[in-house]
Amino acid sequence: MNPKHWSADKLRQEIRNGKWTGQTSGVASGYVQANMVMLPKENAFEFLLFCNRNPKPCPVLDVLEPGRFSPNIAKGADVRTDLPKYSIYRNGVLESEVHDVSEMFGEDTVTFLLGCSFSFEKALMAAHVPVRNIEEGKNVSMYVTNRDCQGAGDFSSKLVVSMRPMTPGQAVRAVQITTRYHVTHGAPVHMGSPEQIGIFDLSKPDFGDPVTIREGEIPVFWACGVTSTLAALSIKSPLAITHSPGHMFVSDLLDEEMAIF
Amino acid sequence: MNPKHWSADKLRQEIRNGKWTGQTSGVASGYVQANMVMLPKENAFEFLLFCNRNPKPCPVLDVLEPGRFSPNIAKGADVRTDLPKYSIYRNGVLESEVHDVSEMFGEDTVTFLLGCSFSFEKALMAAHVPVRNIEEGKNVSMYVTNRDCQGAGDFSSKLVVSMRPMTPGQAVRAVQITTRYHVTHGAPVHMGSPEQIGIFDLSKPDFGDPVTIREGEIPVFWACGVTSTLAALSIKSPLAITHSPGHMFVSDLLDEEMAIF
Repeated sequence: MNPKHWSADKLRQEIRNGKWTGQTSGVASGYVQANMVMLPKENAFEFLLFCNRNPKPCPVLDVLEPGRFSPNIAKGADVRTDLPKYSIYRNGVLESEVHDVSEMFGEDTVTFLLGCSFSFEKALMAAHVPVRNIEEGKNVSMYVTNRDCQGAGDFSSKLVVSMRPMTPGQAVRAVQITTRYHVTHGAPVHMGSPEQIGIFDLSKPDFGDPVTIREGEIPVFWACGVTSTLAALSIKSPLAITHSPGHMFVSDLLDEEMAIF
Repeated sequence: MNPKHWSADKLRQEIRNGKWTGQTSGVASGYVQANMVMLPKENAFEFLLFCNRNPKPCPVLDVLEPGRFSPNIAKGADVRTDLPKYSIYRNGVLESEVHDVSEMFGEDTVTFLLGCSFSFEKALMAAHVPVRNIEEGKNVSMYVTNRDCQGAGDFSSKLVVSMRPMTPGQAVRAVQITTRYHVTHGAPVHMGSPEQIGIFDLSKPDFGDPVTIREGEIPVFWACGVTSTLAALSIKSPLAITHSPGHMFVSDLLDEEMAIF
């Protein structure tokens, strides 16, 4: 069967058995995928507070109590083994990427699962609104803006955005469509005038790839889950674990089930 | 000036100066009012998790770091003095009601402000959908259902709902209208058939007053902020402080500003 049509459960099994180690974009289509952050219990309240104060970049899908590895949003899943790739950060610096974090997952590890834009990209395409990064087979362009997120305790971050170019008319439709997906970043945070949010060269994204912007198109910006990674690293914790870019946790939730109306 | 037209700031000043000690329904109209819970720092992560897992009854508007008393959502406010009445619970049991909690507010007190249904009642009336409790000058009818909220750590509660009777056609409109107010309980959780959610006599609410249900009307149920009080008390903390029923915290947020679209 085409991996696009796998169930979330099937995909997680393939990942756990080491048979799927790649990105998850477009796989098990229709299931909500999630950014993942693991932090020590002592930082959990303030990080959850950061997410609550910045719900557009950091929409909370699930949080697991200390030491728990079975999420509520995915039956039989294990967050220690069910992501295709993890990034390990020591004191805020990337140390390595691994496929299993069971060894370093402890009694006091708290796991956060946060919504990701894959949910609304499918809905945009269904309405013939272009998603240029998918059309061109690239990672979406992401930029660190000049806007501060609201801090919480010691956690802070600039807002990171993803960008998709489209015509102004398509942008109106995109606002309507993505408003429905409020737990997966929701409506755009900005459109046009990239310099207003501190972006001076769209062809040089901070993360991901540049995409073609056609005549008559404007850049439309959505809050991006990478913000949660930057925030998690901002306290330079001795150990922080996140998904590796594009290698998300795939839940049993359906995109349509999470839409607000 | 009619208190209905006061700014939130003016109302908070009157409360702080002991000049306004009554309920806040209909006062400073248009400003978002909030349920309030104060708990010790050691319980803060799990209570915030409870709210995140049950966003319809417990929509988070603001959470203050331990010892902080100035909320982000109300300039110059002080949560220790700016609610007209507080309920003090010791080991889960109501001990007293007071107008100022400065004496018992400590370095490790964490304050939670959660959305309340006053926001959407105004929007319903603006669309000529009846709000019977307001028509009859009563408190809204509230019931403890047979539905369990999703627990978090040691926190648990049955879902509490508020009920407003209306025709099926008005109920459709009410779903549309309240969907906009997702941070103040959002769309209904149930309609008709009260016995399906464990309510066997609508004339005997667990909290608030019974209201008239007219021929051809069905009961429409919304998740209710009282759920957060029951959850806060479920751990029988040595000290828990909440707003007293109907005596809410009034923020600077506008109802319309918080609507999702």
